[in-house]
Amino acid sequence: MNERIKALRHKMAGLDLQGMIISNPINVKYLTGIDAEGILLLTRKENIYVTDARYTEHVTSTLTPFDEIVVDDQKNISKEDYENYFLFCENVGFEEDYVTYAVYKEYMHKYKINNFVEATKLLESLRMIKDEEELKNIKKACEITDKCFEFLLEFIKPGMTEKQIARKIHDFYMDNAEGESFETIVASGENSSKPHAIPTDRKIKEKDIILIDMGCKVKGYCSDMTRTIFVGEPVKEQLEIYNLVLESQKRVLNEIRDGQNIKNLAKIVENDFSDKGYTLIHSLGHGVGLDIHEKPFINMKNDNTIKENMVITNEPGIYLTQNFGVRIEDTVLVTKHGAITLTESGKECIII
Amino acid sequence: MNERIKALRHKMAGLDLQGMIISNPINVKYLTGIDAEGILLLTRKENIYVTDARYTEHVTSTLTPFDEIVVDDQKNISKEDYENYFLFCENVGFEEDYVTYAVYKEYMHKYKINNFVEATKLLESLRMIKDEEELKNIKKACEITDKCFEFLLEFIKPGMTEKQIARKIHDFYMDNAEGESFETIVASGENSSKPHAIPTDRKIKEKDIILIDMGCKVKGYCSDMTRTIFVGEPVKEQLEIYNLVLESQKRVLNEIRDGQNIKNLAKIVENDFSDKGYTLIHSLGHGVGLDIHEKPFINMKNDNTIKENMVITNEPGIYLTQNFGVRIEDTVLVTKHGAITLTESGKECIII
Repeated sequence: MNERIKALRHKMAGLDLQGMIISNPINVKYLTGIDAEGILLLTRKENIYVTDARYTEHVTSTLTPFDEIVVDDQKNISKEDYENYFLFCENVGFEEDYVTYAVYKEYMHKYKINNFVEATKLLESLRMIKDEEELKNIKKACEITDKCFEFLLEFIKPGMTEKQIARKIHDFYMDNAEGESFETIVASGENSSKPHAIPTDRKIKEKDIILIDMGCKVKGYCSDMTRTIFVGEPVKEQLEIYNLVLESQKRVLNEIRDGQNIKNLAKIVENDFSDKGYTLIHSLGHGVGLDIHEKPFINMKNDNTIKENMVITNEPGIYLTQNFGVRIEDTVLVTKHGAITLTESGKECIII
Repeated sequence: MNERIKALRHKMAGLDLQGMIISNPINVKYLTGIDAEGILLLTRKENIYVTDARYTEHVTSTLTPFDEIVVDDQKNISKEDYENYFLFCENVGFEEDYVTYAVYKEYMHKYKINNFVEATKLLESLRMIKDEEELKNIKKACEITDKCFEFLLEFIKPGMTEKQIARKIHDFYMDNAEGESFETIVASGENSSKPHAIPTDRKIKEKDIILIDMGCKVKGYCSDMTRTIFVGEPVKEQLEIYNLVLESQKRVLNEIRDGQNIKNLAKIVENDFSDKGYTLIHSLGHGVGLDIHEKPFINMKNDNTIKENMVITNEPGIYLTQNFGVRIEDTVLVTKHGAITLTESGKECIII
């Protein structure tokens, strides 16, 4: 059987689950490689992927006999078939963070579930730790992001609009990867004070600050990087804040390693910022994988530890409303002995 | 108070709901114009939008005093505040098709809900019927789609890849609208047999059939159109199937009007196709609005009727596995006396 399904079944046994319904397409892709609409059922004896005619071609060409996954077209499944999938299963797991309340009720009824158990954490705990193949894809996505940024430093000129720059990034990622991993942020001047700004028709001017948050996908795996750059020499206040954010980001980087408490990482930045009268208004970071934002979330509320082969972002930022903002972000691999920064673009005050 | 919230409150009274939690951002945008992360609470006496520092600038600039919406930053809301929002509310509505099981449980607890009632249908029934402003945006999105298609007929040449054509559509929509309303499909040759094909590096050849499914957004409102075109004269089998799909699509169009039974519309195509030995393997259509796919869904299982000022698609298709496929789709406005086709691109056998 495919290794990831085997690992999940092992974890299911630990929770006394005899069956599981996996409906989040990202989890299905993680477990099977399938990129389609359908549902994966892990029953007592079988792994069954239920889909429809639109996807059977793709699904059968993706799976190998080694996967041990039966493919069923939903058109051929009777009411009784559904009721029999989890016969003699006392406990069946489901993804409580993906399945809507309406679908939860539908499943309970359709599959005649005895005890429907919240089991998202089983998949999260698997997905948080990346294997060789996954790391290869994330590294590649980070490498392409570095190349894109290198290209941008030559490309960006006063007079261009934020939208034009965002479009160029989109095109670069379409040509060199599977496209963007999220909607690119290009925020210039006062727009940079909005952490989630959408690119506008504002033209880049001399003396502007530009915040660019960008990432792409390789085989479904994401990269995520933010750089804040200057058009001409920054003013003193900008430089002070830039250096505060940068030093804090580096301090966090030095503390990232297997076993480190997550809350403590966020605390480094909170302390650095509050010493100077600023606040960190968003999380310090998040896991990166098939989802651009996934577990673990790096913030003051999370008392867990980070582990070897997790991939997380480290992205402190300070935003002065209607004035300007600075964020510096890298995608980082956690190892036994420290962090490896996967996005390697320069971050010492960049002036174009 | 803003008209849409007033209409929703009227419907809530009919279901004996004293409060409602609206978390689907599309519904929040529909009711308030706000395009952010946050939750809209309709309590006994107030309309409250709960968001965070990242969005307060956008939210306050979007709302007017006329909306009568209080904006709260979640940082300032205490445990007790949450518990008091729905005090003395016997029944509180929520969106069971959007809220996950995990969030459902969280809300129950956080807001101390007595009776949490599935209430998605209230919003769906409002959103299905479009007002003047909404129709203006959808019409504009359809008009831009027609212009894009006109441009494509000149642009597409043998030797180009599907991806290059899809990119051009993307760029056109970025320049003339708010971008695509869904991922464009450009499927040529045997790829057209997959109803949900993703653009590939396959090059357009002489004698190809090309299926293009495209749409854009204007102020959040979507258009949706599919055309199947030929590079040079089609072969006999292709032409026969093309005409079968086209005639059936036109027959449906003639039957679309206020009060028409939805099942009967789908039955027209199913009958036309089965007479010739083919099957309709997907729905005949769907509603279009702020979501590209919304209620009503036009298929054999839906026994409801369509109403004046609904906007739906009419998109029959036939797919011969590993050979070719034909789909013809328009976005259509339902009126008292018939259908108005909003996408007006030609559909009589187009040869480039």
